[in-house]
Amino acid sequence: MSQLESALDYARAHKDEHLAELVDLLSIPSVSTLPEHKPDIRRCAEWLKAQLESLGLSTVELKETPGHPIVYGEWLEAPGKPTVLVYGHYDVQPADPFNEWDTPPFEPTVRDDYIYARGASDMKGQIFAQIKALQALTQFGEIPFNIKYLIEGEEEIGSENLEDFIDNNIDLLQCDFVLNTDAGIYAKGQPGITYSLRGLAYFEIELRAHQKDLHSGRFGGTVLNPIHELSKLITGLHDAQGRVTLPGFYDKVRDLPQEERDAIAQLPYSDEDWLGMSGSKVLGGEEGYTTLERVGVRPCLDVNGIWGGFVGEGAKTVLPAVAHCKLSTRLVAHQNHRDIPAMLEAYLKENVPEGLDWSLHDHSGGPGSTMDRHSPYMKAAEDALRTTYGKETLFSPEGGSIPVVGMMQEKLDSDSILLGFALPDDGIHGPNERQYLPNTFTGIETYIHYMMNVGG
Amino acid sequence: MSQLESALDYARAHKDEHLAELVDLLSIPSVSTLPEHKPDIRRCAEWLKAQLESLGLSTVELKETPGHPIVYGEWLEAPGKPTVLVYGHYDVQPADPFNEWDTPPFEPTVRDDYIYARGASDMKGQIFAQIKALQALTQFGEIPFNIKYLIEGEEEIGSENLEDFIDNNIDLLQCDFVLNTDAGIYAKGQPGITYSLRGLAYFEIELRAHQKDLHSGRFGGTVLNPIHELSKLITGLHDAQGRVTLPGFYDKVRDLPQEERDAIAQLPYSDEDWLGMSGSKVLGGEEGYTTLERVGVRPCLDVNGIWGGFVGEGAKTVLPAVAHCKLSTRLVAHQNHRDIPAMLEAYLKENVPEGLDWSLHDHSGGPGSTMDRHSPYMKAAEDALRTTYGKETLFSPEGGSIPVVGMMQEKLDSDSILLGFALPDDGIHGPNERQYLPNTFTGIETYIHYMMNVGG
Repeated sequence: MSQLESALDYARAHKDEHLAELVDLLSIPSVSTLPEHKPDIRRCAEWLKAQLESLGLSTVELKETPGHPIVYGEWLEAPGKPTVLVYGHYDVQPADPFNEWDTPPFEPTVRDDYIYARGASDMKGQIFAQIKALQALTQFGEIPFNIKYLIEGEEEIGSENLEDFIDNNIDLLQCDFVLNTDAGIYAKGQPGITYSLRGLAYFEIELRAHQKDLHSGRFGGTVLNPIHELSKLITGLHDAQGRVTLPGFYDKVRDLPQEERDAIAQLPYSDEDWLGMSGSKVLGGEEGYTTLERVGVRPCLDVNGIWGGFVGEGAKTVLPAVAHCKLSTRLVAHQNHRDIPAMLEAYLKENVPEGLDWSLHDHSGGPGSTMDRHSPYMKAAEDALRTTYGKETLFSPEGGSIPVVGMMQEKLDSDSILLGFALPDDGIHGPNERQYLPNTFTGIETYIHYMMNVGG
Repeated sequence: MSQLESALDYARAHKDEHLAELVDLLSIPSVSTLPEHKPDIRRCAEWLKAQLESLGLSTVELKETPGHPIVYGEWLEAPGKPTVLVYGHYDVQPADPFNEWDTPPFEPTVRDDYIYARGASDMKGQIFAQIKALQALTQFGEIPFNIKYLIEGEEEIGSENLEDFIDNNIDLLQCDFVLNTDAGIYAKGQPGITYSLRGLAYFEIELRAHQKDLHSGRFGGTVLNPIHELSKLITGLHDAQGRVTLPGFYDKVRDLPQEERDAIAQLPYSDEDWLGMSGSKVLGGEEGYTTLERVGVRPCLDVNGIWGGFVGEGAKTVLPAVAHCKLSTRLVAHQNHRDIPAMLEAYLKENVPEGLDWSLHDHSGGPGSTMDRHSPYMKAAEDALRTTYGKETLFSPEGGSIPVVGMMQEKLDSDSILLGFALPDDGIHGPNERQYLPNTFTGIETYIHYMMNVGG
């Protein structure tokens, strides 16, 4: 039997052991945001370190950071083969409110083919499946490519120390591509890969018209009202076609190949579902694009919050001194989030009436990214998914951001392949988070196929 | 000697006694908003009742209300003469922060021609002067007209029970005009009368686009943003000329006689002063009108507060479900505040995009009012002020509201003459409130002249 077939047989024969080990991993409350769980975080990192050691890697260690440690491993003894950086995280969200869990979040429980536990889907279940896949392969031969592992413990708190770590270890982390296992498929039985993510640039604007709040009777009608002026500025940021008016905003936005539009049009979608998910009665957005294009491959701008003047109960006749808003743009490849502040600044310079003071605070963000759908590493994933699911993969663009993907693209010049087996209704970040166990096992098989495909 | 001359002599001869009595009155902490001062409130009402009794009125009594009592008095034995309703209030604002007072707020202290005490200017000093003037007159003859007193104890808490009291006593309160003593002059040595007040209609708008807040990555660009839509609505409420766009808003606004515009143009004013007072760098408002016209005799609309979405520290990528604002119009005679809700409702019906839910909450308000500058009662005041100050009176329109003036106009069909002697820098509602003592004494003389003119 080939290494592939043996590994698949091995994985199928060890389901019980794998489940038991997964229960072990999910029992560790590695909540990164809570100081009282610091020992659990380290215990979880050590658990993974032991797993990586069992793979026969040449180096496995915990890389200390000012926060939680990064589990690092490598094996680079496949000359001429690609180098894959496997990314994952072992920290989880807090589990409260605990009373909304049917079974305790750190006592993993199997019901109806699901395993319920905090971190089951986001994302211990995914990195576990990848490790088990490689473990199966190493029983029957060498690792088919060069591999590096980077499993961080701070994803749920914004990967606070990851950027510095990458900056300080550019050479160490060089790779041909990143296998990001923090990912999911489209639906039960329907493989899918997210190939495009939006970036973010987030700002706060303050607009001041007076030194202090005024009496609206004493001064109303004779001076500028900063809420009126901020409303005008917000209104002016979109044109009648729903396009963002910031000069230069679309300059770097890539043209959409017809092939890609066709593929997006094939994705399961209905207005009714979208309205149901958003709890809205109408759709909106940029003219000339479908909803999935608007959210996936077109940039947008939203005011995220606004405040000014009197906001308490009842009536207070105040003419406010100042108004504020938070505002962000969602960016697509190849827009650079670092270009946006200057555009907004130019817009404000041009449009804030003389005599008003304004400030623009940059909350920073990250770039959008798109992965080459025709790269050999993407084809390898598509083929692996076809083999295990017996279905073609749906490639979909996603409206949100995965900062680490942009970071890897920017700092390591490496594309990410987002291959994981979470489902949209796994309830990540909420109570009763779960993973569909058939996905765990299919996931192990898919990773086995995938790694063999990549190793060629 | 005539009654007039004798009364003036009497007033001049009794300055010390008057000052001592004023100190008595100002020593009573009649703070209407604080329950612990309820006995003081009643003590103050009794003090005034005794004063009215000393005038020889035919009826003097405390009219009980669900809150603080109203001091009521009347003398109607001057057939063929006008009936004057004297309005005032005996309650005062709280005096805290106490440590900002140079001398205790309820230990009236004379320094440099001012008497410092809470209520000195707002408005015990005024109603006191009016009573002392009538007292002087009654030493030497009959009251020259029919008189009614209505001195309430709840002005500083929104005249909570006054409206009901008036509704239940329409006949009792019938009069030819109201002498409202809760008023001031233009500047030291410069008599002035406010002849026009703006009304108010105050609202709250809620605009909902989604059942709950959405993730701005997951949905941004595909659904409506209620903050954007509220901003458009706010922006649409003014045209490029600074006029309010609500259909019908200006229909009942009176035309401005050239004579009145000329008079307003004569009032002391400079842009620099106005900017200084408002703490602004630029002026704004309706095209074609001066600042004093804009604030005094033209209506306006201001958003008083706005809120929606994420307003905390940092960045949260929320696409808000709902946005709110508080919004009010300042109205001039003869606009009716009860007409405005329908205008706003029509505007929202016309302009809120389909699929958004909105609500309009009416915080109510009051009508604007303007007093006939050429009525005999106004002329009587102008003449009295000319006699005592040796200067022509400045008639000025005011941007704020005095709800009781609108209430009297609406319910009793009676104009108010605003005659009092507060100064703009008396510091009402703040620490170190004061009254300029020469104004107290000139005030008594002016009221003497005024009453003789009216009875004339």
